[in-house]
Amino acid sequence: MERGCVGIDIGGTSVKLGMFDEEGTLLEKWSIPTNRNQNGAEIIPDIAASVSRKLNQLEVNPAHLTGIGVGVPGQVSEDGMVLLAENLGWKNVPLMRELSERTGLPVCAENDANLAALGESWKGSAGHCHSMMFVTLGTGIGCGIVVKGQILTGVHGAAGEIGHMHAEDHMPEQCVCGKYGCLEQLASATGLRWMGERALERSTKPSLLREGEVSAKTIFEAAGKGDVLAVRVAEQFGKYLGKALADCTCVLNPEVIVIGGGVAKGGQIVLDYIEKYYRQYAYQPFGETKLKLASLGNDAGIYGAARLAITSESLIKQVQ
Amino acid sequence: MERGCVGIDIGGTSVKLGMFDEEGTLLEKWSIPTNRNQNGAEIIPDIAASVSRKLNQLEVNPAHLTGIGVGVPGQVSEDGMVLLAENLGWKNVPLMRELSERTGLPVCAENDANLAALGESWKGSAGHCHSMMFVTLGTGIGCGIVVKGQILTGVHGAAGEIGHMHAEDHMPEQCVCGKYGCLEQLASATGLRWMGERALERSTKPSLLREGEVSAKTIFEAAGKGDVLAVRVAEQFGKYLGKALADCTCVLNPEVIVIGGGVAKGGQIVLDYIEKYYRQYAYQPFGETKLKLASLGNDAGIYGAARLAITSESLIKQVQ
Repeated sequence: MERGCVGIDIGGTSVKLGMFDEEGTLLEKWSIPTNRNQNGAEIIPDIAASVSRKLNQLEVNPAHLTGIGVGVPGQVSEDGMVLLAENLGWKNVPLMRELSERTGLPVCAENDANLAALGESWKGSAGHCHSMMFVTLGTGIGCGIVVKGQILTGVHGAAGEIGHMHAEDHMPEQCVCGKYGCLEQLASATGLRWMGERALERSTKPSLLREGEVSAKTIFEAAGKGDVLAVRVAEQFGKYLGKALADCTCVLNPEVIVIGGGVAKGGQIVLDYIEKYYRQYAYQPFGETKLKLASLGNDAGIYGAARLAITSESLIKQVQ
Repeated sequence: MERGCVGIDIGGTSVKLGMFDEEGTLLEKWSIPTNRNQNGAEIIPDIAASVSRKLNQLEVNPAHLTGIGVGVPGQVSEDGMVLLAENLGWKNVPLMRELSERTGLPVCAENDANLAALGESWKGSAGHCHSMMFVTLGTGIGCGIVVKGQILTGVHGAAGEIGHMHAEDHMPEQCVCGKYGCLEQLASATGLRWMGERALERSTKPSLLREGEVSAKTIFEAAGKGDVLAVRVAEQFGKYLGKALADCTCVLNPEVIVIGGGVAKGGQIVLDYIEKYYRQYAYQPFGETKLKLASLGNDAGIYGAARLAITSESLIKQVQ
C-alpha cells in the first residue's frame, strides 16, 4: 500500500473499522464492541489500541497513512469536538484531539449520517454524481447531503433533518421533537408499524398482517403479495415520503436520491412506492432526479469516514 | 480605485449596471433599456458599449478591473452559456464569450435570483452569515441559496425552486408548471390576490378590500388595520409560506432566511405573519434560523454580480 487511511464508524453497540487505500479500496474490515460504561470513556482508548494492533498485524507503516476519519452518532463541531452523542454517553468529547494524541495520526470527525452519505456518493449508488441526498429509513429518518463532494452541514449541523419536515396536519400523536405530523412519525420503520397497526384496527378485512408481527418488512412482503391493507399502508408511506422528497428536490435539485436504512432492505418494491408519488409531486423542468437504493449497506459509514480522511482540509492542516 | 469590477443585472425592461471597488462599495450606478427586438440580439452589444463609455467617462483603466459579473433572468450553464431566458428572447446565447470579446474583460454569468441572494449575503441583510436563503415574493416565488459564500445551484440549476413545493392538496387551479397546489399559487403576489378575491367572493362581510384593487399591498395594509377578511388571507399566506420555509430549514439548516420581492415591500407585518407560522412548524434543536427582510432592494442583483466577478473561479481561470 503506497498511501492509505483508516475509516471508523462508531455505533451504539459496535465500532466498525476499515483500512483503505487512497483509491477507496477496502483492504481490511473489522469491528470492536462499543464500551458505553463510564459515559463511554474507554471508547477512544479502545479504538486507538485496535488501530495500532491492526497496523502492526498488517505491517503498515503509520507514516504511509493520510489519517483517520471517524463517524459519530451525534453532533460534531467543525474542530472535531463531539458536542453530544447520547447513544455513547458523550458530551463535549474532544475526539479529534484525543484520538490523534493516542495514535500519532491526524484525525477528522463528522456526524455518521453525513459520512454514510459521503460514502454512498463516493463508492456507492451515487458514485461520482454532482449532488445527492442519502435518506436513511430506520427507527427515525436521517439524511446526509453531499454537493460536489462536500457535505452540506448547515449552520448548526442540522442540514438533512428531513425526518422533521411537516407531513400530516391531522396527526394525533406527538413526535419526539414535540411537534405533530413529522415525516418520521409516518414514513420511518416506526411510522410504517404505526400506520400498519392503525390500518388493522380500523378495518375488519382479512390481512396477512394479522398473522404475526407488523413491521416495515412484513408490510412490504404482504404488499408484494397484493394484501389490500398492506398495499394501502405502503401507498400512504410512498405518498408521505415521495411528496417530501419532491419538496426537497425543489430546494436542492440533487442529481440522485439514495434510499437506505432498514426499511430499504425491502428492496425495489419500497423504491417503487416512493417513486410513484415522487414523480407525481416533483418539479423537474430541466431534468429528472434519479432515485436509487443504497448499495454499501452497513459499510457506507466507514467508506465515508475514509473519504473524509483523504479530502478533509482540517486534516491537511494538521499534517502540514 | 485600486481594483474594481462591474456588476450587471439584465432584466426584461432595463439593464442595471454598477461600478464597484473590491470591498463592494458601489461607486456608480446606471441603467440602459433592454432591447428585446430580434430575440435580444442587441442586448450584449448595448451592454458592451455602455460599459466602455462609463469606463471612459470615469477614467477607469480597464486593466484595473477584475472583470464583469452578469445576472440573467434564466438558466445559465457553468461555462456562461445562457440556455434559456424567455423574457429576453434568448436561447443558447454565449453571453460570457461574446461580452468578453466585446469588452476585452473577463466575464462570468449566473441566474439573477442566485446573484440577488449572493448580493444580500454579501452586503445586505444576511451579511457574513454561514448560509442563507433569499426568498423573492413577486409574481412567482424565487429563491437563491448561498452556503459559505458559494451559490448552491443544483445539478440542473434548479436549486431554490421553492415556488413549486407542494403546499395545498385541494387547489382547484393549475400552476404554470402543470401541477396543482404549488406554493407560488398561494404565497406569491399572484397567490395573495387570488386568495383575497376568493375570500371576498365567499363572504358577505364588509372589508376594506371591497373598496379597490385587491393586491398584496392592499391586503397587508387592510390587515394592519384589523380588517377581518384581510387578516384571514394574511394568516393563510403566513401559514403556507411559514410551513414551507420550516421544511426548507429541515433540509438546509440556514443561518438566515431573507424575504424580498414586491410582497416584502409591505414591511414588518409581512415578516410577522410568516414568522408566526415558521416558528410553529420549524425544527430547530440546535439554534434558531433568523428571518429578515431584504435590505438591498433592486440593487441586490448588481451587488451579487460584482461579488461573482470578484470570487468566481471561472473568471480567475480566464484571467490567468
